[in-house]
Amino acid sequence: MKHSKKFREIWVSTDSHMIANEATKCGAKVHWRSRMSATDTASSLVALQDFIKGHKEFDRIGLIQCTSPFLAVKYLNEAFEHLQQGYDSVFSVTREFKLRWKENRPEKTFVAVNFDPARRPRRQDWDGELVENGMFYFTRRHLISRGLIQGGRIGVVQVERKDSLEVDNPADLNLARYQSGDL
Amino acid sequence: MKHSKKFREIWVSTDSHMIANEATKCGAKVHWRSRMSATDTASSLVALQDFIKGHKEFDRIGLIQCTSPFLAVKYLNEAFEHLQQGYDSVFSVTREFKLRWKENRPEKTFVAVNFDPARRPRRQDWDGELVENGMFYFTRRHLISRGLIQGGRIGVVQVERKDSLEVDNPADLNLARYQSGDL
Repeated sequence: MKHSKKFREIWVSTDSHMIANEATKCGAKVHWRSRMSATDTASSLVALQDFIKGHKEFDRIGLIQCTSPFLAVKYLNEAFEHLQQGYDSVFSVTREFKLRWKENRPEKTFVAVNFDPARRPRRQDWDGELVENGMFYFTRRHLISRGLIQGGRIGVVQVERKDSLEVDNPADLNLARYQSGDL
Repeated sequence: MKHSKKFREIWVSTDSHMIANEATKCGAKVHWRSRMSATDTASSLVALQDFIKGHKEFDRIGLIQCTSPFLAVKYLNEAFEHLQQGYDSVFSVTREFKLRWKENRPEKTFVAVNFDPARRPRRQDWDGELVENGMFYFTRRHLISRGLIQGGRIGVVQVERKDSLEVDNPADLNLARYQSGDL
């Protein structure tokens, strides 16, 4: 975020003194999360709502999640370009090529959802599908107040698959360490 | 496959003498792939069609792909149970919880496909979606002849996310080595 040089201020939202110390050392400001927004099940929206309540000065806000360790400046720059073009919310996605199936309940059989089994597509034959990868969400105050992270004119930044890892459990963390050359 | 003890015969389909040697050492029989079915772009269906042409004795066939290194006997056993219950094709899937988006072409904005942005679901709030992971496909001769891997009464075996890695490029291979404790 610092390297992009495009953020007016960088805040770390936490309820941990250790994390707050690290954040301050790195030049970020610290937002002390409310009790309600610091639970294990609190959503990103609740975290954003908690933040804007104490910070009336921001209209545009980018939520960058530390669970996506392969964030790169180029992705942030692309998001900023979108914002300059008038998009209200911009977030990161990954292009995936997954063949999906759905259960037919009474019969307990399965049907293909996004392709024809008589013509199974190869990766090069279709555009795939865009899925959120949780790396970042840029949005605006009035959307957050209305309970939305994504609203208004919505744009996306496509992240390469190799950079899309989302750390969700200890195994993912090891994977991230390995991928970054730390292991 | 050997550990499951449920296969009448185990064949390795290849056009490589090195792979054929390894296969024989491990007790598998070798099917020499035709030129046409051994290209980089040949589909799994073409490989199956190539195999059944020379092997009229098999009605049921399981294609197990060596690109899924975390195959476990329990998954094969589950597939066999389905076959005994009368399913014609059974293949492996993974449950994913991905929020999908689609481009609205003329406007160049994006719309959510499988959820409501005003009520972003948490993982625990929905069933997710089933996607093929390419680990295995059990099917029948008459389906393959008709150009289908999946047809008739279709069932699935759900593979845990940690076992679902599909090796598609050298980075994946390193990931697999790391995950298996080899690195």
